[in-house]
Amino acid sequence: MHNPLRIAVAGLGTVGSSVVRIIQNEKLSLFDKAGSDLVVSAVSARDKNRDRGVDLANIDWHDDAKNLIQDNIDILVEVIGGADGVAYDIVKAALGKGISVVTANKALLAVHGSELAQLAEQNNAHLKYEAAVAGAIPAIKAVREGLAANQITSIYGILNGTCNYILTQMRETGGSFNEILKEAQDKGYAEADPSFDIDGVDTAHKTALLAAAAFNMAPDFNHIPTRGIRHVTSTDICYAEDLGYKIKLLGVVRKTDLGIEQSVEPCLVDLNTPLAAIDGSLNAVYTESPFAHETLMVGRGAGGDPTASAVVADIIDIARGVHISPFGVPSEKWNDTPMADMDERMVASYIRLIVEDSPGVLADISGILRDENISIQSALQLSEITKGIVPLILITHTVKTKALKGALAKIEKLRSVKEQPFTMRIIEQE
Amino acid sequence: MHNPLRIAVAGLGTVGSSVVRIIQNEKLSLFDKAGSDLVVSAVSARDKNRDRGVDLANIDWHDDAKNLIQDNIDILVEVIGGADGVAYDIVKAALGKGISVVTANKALLAVHGSELAQLAEQNNAHLKYEAAVAGAIPAIKAVREGLAANQITSIYGILNGTCNYILTQMRETGGSFNEILKEAQDKGYAEADPSFDIDGVDTAHKTALLAAAAFNMAPDFNHIPTRGIRHVTSTDICYAEDLGYKIKLLGVVRKTDLGIEQSVEPCLVDLNTPLAAIDGSLNAVYTESPFAHETLMVGRGAGGDPTASAVVADIIDIARGVHISPFGVPSEKWNDTPMADMDERMVASYIRLIVEDSPGVLADISGILRDENISIQSALQLSEITKGIVPLILITHTVKTKALKGALAKIEKLRSVKEQPFTMRIIEQE
Repeated sequence: MHNPLRIAVAGLGTVGSSVVRIIQNEKLSLFDKAGSDLVVSAVSARDKNRDRGVDLANIDWHDDAKNLIQDNIDILVEVIGGADGVAYDIVKAALGKGISVVTANKALLAVHGSELAQLAEQNNAHLKYEAAVAGAIPAIKAVREGLAANQITSIYGILNGTCNYILTQMRETGGSFNEILKEAQDKGYAEADPSFDIDGVDTAHKTALLAAAAFNMAPDFNHIPTRGIRHVTSTDICYAEDLGYKIKLLGVVRKTDLGIEQSVEPCLVDLNTPLAAIDGSLNAVYTESPFAHETLMVGRGAGGDPTASAVVADIIDIARGVHISPFGVPSEKWNDTPMADMDERMVASYIRLIVEDSPGVLADISGILRDENISIQSALQLSEITKGIVPLILITHTVKTKALKGALAKIEKLRSVKEQPFTMRIIEQE
Repeated sequence: MHNPLRIAVAGLGTVGSSVVRIIQNEKLSLFDKAGSDLVVSAVSARDKNRDRGVDLANIDWHDDAKNLIQDNIDILVEVIGGADGVAYDIVKAALGKGISVVTANKALLAVHGSELAQLAEQNNAHLKYEAAVAGAIPAIKAVREGLAANQITSIYGILNGTCNYILTQMRETGGSFNEILKEAQDKGYAEADPSFDIDGVDTAHKTALLAAAAFNMAPDFNHIPTRGIRHVTSTDICYAEDLGYKIKLLGVVRKTDLGIEQSVEPCLVDLNTPLAAIDGSLNAVYTESPFAHETLMVGRGAGGDPTASAVVADIIDIARGVHISPFGVPSEKWNDTPMADMDERMVASYIRLIVEDSPGVLADISGILRDENISIQSALQLSEITKGIVPLILITHTVKTKALKGALAKIEKLRSVKEQPFTMRIIEQE
């Protein structure tokens, strides 16, 4: 390992700037831990003149990130973002030259992780991504190393702070999704284009990486059925609570008899479980495994310093000579357990129907459910939302997803049903 | 690294047996992760004939653990326990020969960690102890590696499952300490001689190790002022709750202007904070640091499988070539920040006095407190416990420990004060 360890930082947004600042300000402490001097030798960003509160004197500046990939760097820190484009190009170029990569880019690895991990392996380079999942929480390290004695059986993650913040605020203020989203945007807690967050894409990227690190397999973002929180209403939040649940957007990965189940969806979580207590913009990762049993990790999932904390930890690991395959085992050993057919998955569900308040409606719906062998644990008809129109909340027992889908397709066609049914998975206590 | 990696297990109690079982039953999965075959080649315990539910055929048996330390082993797993005696002897002998050691023995490392870490360093051997703190929770890895970018500022740990269970049961049932301890002993949740647990010694051992790993220093068990939960009454639990707190036995480590503060004591934790929610026999480690900010880790702190999960993770780390100094930096770099003078420490306190129910008592006490400049946030006189005798609960603002001690020494001498005052620290929200 070269000493000093020469680090190039691609992207000087809040995370990149914070990485540079930590490496500069914590020089002595990092040297003691890393065993080498850490030096930011080059950076790239669009605008050289912007004040980022970091000292860029003595650091090579490149307008084009591609020019960072030279023989005089040991580690590329990629914090540009995006699954493709420059980020993909430079990470590939770096690994191809045997330059180690530390990235906070979940989209990149969720989509191209398999190719990039193999490229790293061929070139004996590190590819590290602690910062890509759950920010400051060392969740990748925990599932890949700390729990390595276990074949982990399930992971439940609250992985998007924006969604958790919105759901928490909706619950605490009674505000609608759109009102709270607007507020969050005004406060800078949500992006101007929030769709990656609220539609669950960001959570799915992170879920794919957590699954890969925990189950020792290639990330498989494209096979994660993903639904976000856009259609969660304050009615849902209110009635979930009456029934003893909080609504959380969860990335879920489980190993069952069907194979590996991965999903991102709003879920009802028992109020008495630890995950239900994780409010605001906090992230959390809950695991179940045969020997360690349950573990929970909680912390800041986003922000410059928390994310940079994870980036710098990865750099120290590299300096310390910690060389572990990105997904825990060499690519030839990747777990090839098939993905579960999600239609076969057994889940309990919360169903919200918007129906005419007329006799016979419940009978029609119950009949369809009975024909599909779906048993209902409880049904709750709420008060009118507009004249003659009421929400009807149904809680099913655990049933096969396919059966529920079939029933809902039929229910949706009933004349008395006024909106597309909205469902949420209920997380059963183990 | 020898392949297969030959492991000797000293001690076949629940943890040792579970280590052997996991290594045998998870052979293929562990091989993929570790990159070498893991083989238990020798074991030692007292009674060869006891049925431990593990297959000991083809494993060398030794009645005397000392005979395990031979050139044909790569890793010694020490799960005998105890700060001195056989455990100390064999760990020292192994490290002296360059044999790596994985231990769950907090007492050993809390007392002899400095010497043993240096011995490991001189002989280029690993000394790993994840299992010694918070069982299955990868807390040592988190503070030493996952948060390595940070100079951690504080750690609050619920590190003893027996104490947490007793305090939880006292709160939930209203039972007395002695009743609940007896119940816990009957159920096997507490030892026949519970003093190591309930007097805080076990927590202090773990606190010393967490502090060492997080603050990169030699463990300093002998300078941790330690009080346990033996004197916590159901009155305390009840009034703490009325005041908005739960009582937890906490190992606390903080870096302040005074130096490094370490302590083990029953504390009042705000009901709305995450640590307050950790009930039953669960363990938890909460950290504060400049970049990651707050993190919380929760899980099983004891038991055969959870502890063995951590032991086996350490073995996999060794097989993967992860060689990090036991306390994060080489011994020559150990943090030499002085320990704080705990008498100078600023804390808010809960004080329980048992006093005569007569006019003037409060005036006497208040006068003493005023003379020491201790300001009282609230005072609560409870109803009679026996004729004419009442508990008086005082909550102080943040004051210097020395002043409080001085005042309490005077208060104790008042004729109207019938028992030694009992105090608990109040953990202020950051």
